[in-house]
Amino acid sequence: MRTRPLKVALLGCGVVGSEVARIMTTHADDLAARIGAPVELAGVAVRRPGKVREGVPAELVTTDATALVKRGDIDVVVEVIGGIEPARTLITTAFEHGASVVSANKALLAQDGAALHAAAEVHGKDLYYEAAVAGAIPLIRPLRESLAGDKVNRVLGIVNGTTNFILDKMDTTGAGYQEALDEATALGYAEADPTADVEGFDAAAKAAILAGIAFHTRVRLDDVHREGMTEVTAADFASAKQMGRTIKLLAICERAEDGGSVTARVHPAMIPLTHPLASVRGAYNAVFVESDAAGQLMFYGPGAGGSPTASAVLGDLVAVCRNRLSGTTGPGESAYAALPVSPMGDVVTRYHISLDVADKPGVLAQVATVFAEHGVSIDTVRQQGKDGEASLVIVTHRASDAALGGTVEALRKLDTVRGVASIMRVEGE
Amino acid sequence: MRTRPLKVALLGCGVVGSEVARIMTTHADDLAARIGAPVELAGVAVRRPGKVREGVPAELVTTDATALVKRGDIDVVVEVIGGIEPARTLITTAFEHGASVVSANKALLAQDGAALHAAAEVHGKDLYYEAAVAGAIPLIRPLRESLAGDKVNRVLGIVNGTTNFILDKMDTTGAGYQEALDEATALGYAEADPTADVEGFDAAAKAAILAGIAFHTRVRLDDVHREGMTEVTAADFASAKQMGRTIKLLAICERAEDGGSVTARVHPAMIPLTHPLASVRGAYNAVFVESDAAGQLMFYGPGAGGSPTASAVLGDLVAVCRNRLSGTTGPGESAYAALPVSPMGDVVTRYHISLDVADKPGVLAQVATVFAEHGVSIDTVRQQGKDGEASLVIVTHRASDAALGGTVEALRKLDTVRGVASIMRVEGE
Repeated sequence: MRTRPLKVALLGCGVVGSEVARIMTTHADDLAARIGAPVELAGVAVRRPGKVREGVPAELVTTDATALVKRGDIDVVVEVIGGIEPARTLITTAFEHGASVVSANKALLAQDGAALHAAAEVHGKDLYYEAAVAGAIPLIRPLRESLAGDKVNRVLGIVNGTTNFILDKMDTTGAGYQEALDEATALGYAEADPTADVEGFDAAAKAAILAGIAFHTRVRLDDVHREGMTEVTAADFASAKQMGRTIKLLAICERAEDGGSVTARVHPAMIPLTHPLASVRGAYNAVFVESDAAGQLMFYGPGAGGSPTASAVLGDLVAVCRNRLSGTTGPGESAYAALPVSPMGDVVTRYHISLDVADKPGVLAQVATVFAEHGVSIDTVRQQGKDGEASLVIVTHRASDAALGGTVEALRKLDTVRGVASIMRVEGE
Repeated sequence: MRTRPLKVALLGCGVVGSEVARIMTTHADDLAARIGAPVELAGVAVRRPGKVREGVPAELVTTDATALVKRGDIDVVVEVIGGIEPARTLITTAFEHGASVVSANKALLAQDGAALHAAAEVHGKDLYYEAAVAGAIPLIRPLRESLAGDKVNRVLGIVNGTTNFILDKMDTTGAGYQEALDEATALGYAEADPTADVEGFDAAAKAAILAGIAFHTRVRLDDVHREGMTEVTAADFASAKQMGRTIKLLAICERAEDGGSVTARVHPAMIPLTHPLASVRGAYNAVFVESDAAGQLMFYGPGAGGSPTASAVLGDLVAVCRNRLSGTTGPGESAYAALPVSPMGDVVTRYHISLDVADKPGVLAQVATVFAEHGVSIDTVRQQGKDGEASLVIVTHRASDAALGGTVEALRKLDTVRGVASIMRVEGE
C-alpha cells in the first residue's frame, strides 16, 4: 500500500459534511485498505467558522473555499454545500487545479451537469455524484455501470422522502394534505418552506439526472414536466383505494416506444397496491428500473439524511481515489444517444378522472361521446349518486396527454358536467 | 473512439450464452459507445457443435475451449459454462494468456474464489462476476463500490427464485411442499432434480460470495450453515400467519455485534409481513443490506433467466473492456479484514417453536422452566387445545443457536412433550 495519503478538501460541514468528516476519521483504516492508500482530510471550508464541529480539527477549518480548492495538492474535492453558486465555480476551479470532485448537489447537476462533465473531461478528472439522487441508494452506479450493457426503457421512482412521508400519512390515516404536511414539518421531515419538495422541484432535478444517465442523452431541468402534490386530496385517496390503488409522487423517465425520443416528468400518480413502489413507506425512496434484458429491478432505501448521504459520498470518494491511484478516470457523461426530449403532450399513459355531473339520464352517453371524439378509450366507469348530483369516475386506456387534455377541455363545456373534481395519471400497470 | 475491436471469447452458449451473443450483436453500436471501442465476438466454445444457434455465425463455433482461451488475442473471456471443471482451468488459462474474465459461475466462485482472484491479480487482469449472485440485480458492484466507504453489518436475502416460487405458492394457496414443487416443475421454475435449489446449495454458494464481499473477508462454501426448505409445511405457514409473519428461504450474512467475526447461513425463516422481503413474490429475488451509515437498502429483481443474467454479464463486460482500454483493473478481492467465520451455534436470533404437549395443568410451567434453565427468554406463548392434546407455540427473544439447541433437546425428554412439531428462526424484526 502507498503510504503518502490522498488529500481531501471538504466544502461544507453541515449535516452531510460533518458525517463525511466523522466517517473519514473513524473508518480511516478501512478506507485506506479499500483504496490502497490512506486518505487525509486536508481542509474543511465553512461559512461560519465559529461553530464547534465535533471531530473536525479547528486548524483544518477555513472560510476561504476558493483558496482551499486552489491549493494544488488536493486530490479530491467533496462538495456538499448545495445550491448553484458558489458550488459551481468551486467545482470548475477544483478541476482546473488538478482535483477530482465528488458532489451531492442535485440542483447543480440537473442544471449544469453537461458543463461540469465537460470541465471534468477537459482536465482528465472524475466527477461522481451518487449522493445527488436518492441518498444512500446505489442508483447512479448501477444505471451507469451494471446496466451498461443493457437498454433501459423506463425509470419510475419515489425520489423525494418528504412528499412520500406526507402521501403515506394521508393514505394510512385519511388526513388531508395540510394536516399531513403539518405533521411532517413537526417531525422534521419537511422544511419550514416546503416548496422545493411539495411542488416537485427537488424530484424534477433528480428526474433530469436519472433520465440523462438511463438513456445516454442530455436532459435539462427545463425538459422535465413538473406538477406538485399540494392538490392531492383525501377524496383522491378514497377514490384510489376503491380501485385497488394508492397515490405517490413519481419521477418518471421513459423512452418512447419507437426509441427515438425520451420524456421526463414529475407528478402525483395512482399506482396499483400490488406494485413494489406502493409499499414504500414513510420517508423512504425507491426507484424502479425497466430494461430490455434485466427486466424489472427496484432499488430501495433512505433517500436523505446525513449518514445515508455520507455513505454515498464515501462510496464515490473510494472510487475516485482508486481511479486516481491507478491514473485513470471512471465513466464520464454518456450522452452519445443524443435523443430529443418530447413535450408532455406526447406522453402516453392512463388517467383516472373524477367528474361531478347532473344526475339525469343520458349523461354517461354524452361524456362517453366526448372521450370517443378525442380518441381516448375508456377502461372502466363508476357512477355514484349523491344529493341529486352524481359523480363519475372514469379510468381510461392509454392515451396521449394532449388527447386527454382536449377531452377534459370539452368535458368542461358540457352543461351536464358540473365540474372536473380531479385528474390523475395511472402508472405502473 | 478506438476502431480496433476488443475481442471476446464466449465459453458456453446455452440460455445465458446465446443471449449474451445476441445482445452483443443487436446492441453493438450502443456497446461500442459505452466502451469507447467496438467489441467483437471472436469465438464461441460449445460442447455440441451440431446444434443450430441463431445469431451465432457457424465459423465462430468451436468445441476446443482451451485452444480458444489460449489464442493470445482474446481481451475478455466470458465464462457461462457453470460447474467447477472445466470452467476453473479455462479461467486460469485465460488469465495466463492475457485475458480478463467475466463469469456467472456461483458454484466456482464460492468454492475457489480466493484462488481465482489471486490468479487474476498475479496476471494483472480483471475477474468480474455480477451475474453469479441474484441474476440481473446489481448487488456485487453496489456492495463492492457504492458501499465501499460504509460498513456493512448484515445481508439478508432471497437469492433463489425456485424456492421463493414454491414458498410463495404455499403461502398464497395453502398448498403443501410437494404440490407447490410439482407446480414449479411443471412451469419450468424447478429443475427435474431440484436438490440444488430446495436443499439450499445454490443459496449457500451465493451467501459465501456475498459474505466475503460485504465484510471484506474470505468465506468459503463450507463456512455456510445450510438447511433446505423441504420440511416447511402448510401448518408452518398457518402458524406464521397467526403471528403476522410469512416464511422465506433466506441467505443471512452477519457481522457479530463485537465486530470480530462473521456468520453465514441459509435456512427457512419467518419474517414479519411488514418486512420489505415479505412482499417479494414468485421467482423474484431481493437482497436487504444493513450498513452503519446507509441504513437499510434493498435490491430487487429477477434472480435468474437468460436475459437478466445476460444483462449482468454485459454490464461486467463493458466495465472490463473499459478497464482494459484505460490500462487498469477494477477492485479485486478485498479480504483485508480477515475475520473468522463463527459456527452456527454462535448465531443469535429468535425462534418460533411448535410443541405437541399433553393437555394437563402444569405443562406450560415445565416447558417454561426448561427454556429458563438454558438461558432462553420467552417472548410470547400461544396455547391451543385439540382432541385431548394441546399445542404450544413459543416465540423466544434473541438467543444463541447453541442455547436453543440445548433447550430443544431437553424439551424432547419431558414426558409431557409429545413432540417438537417445528422449529423455525425468526428474522428481520
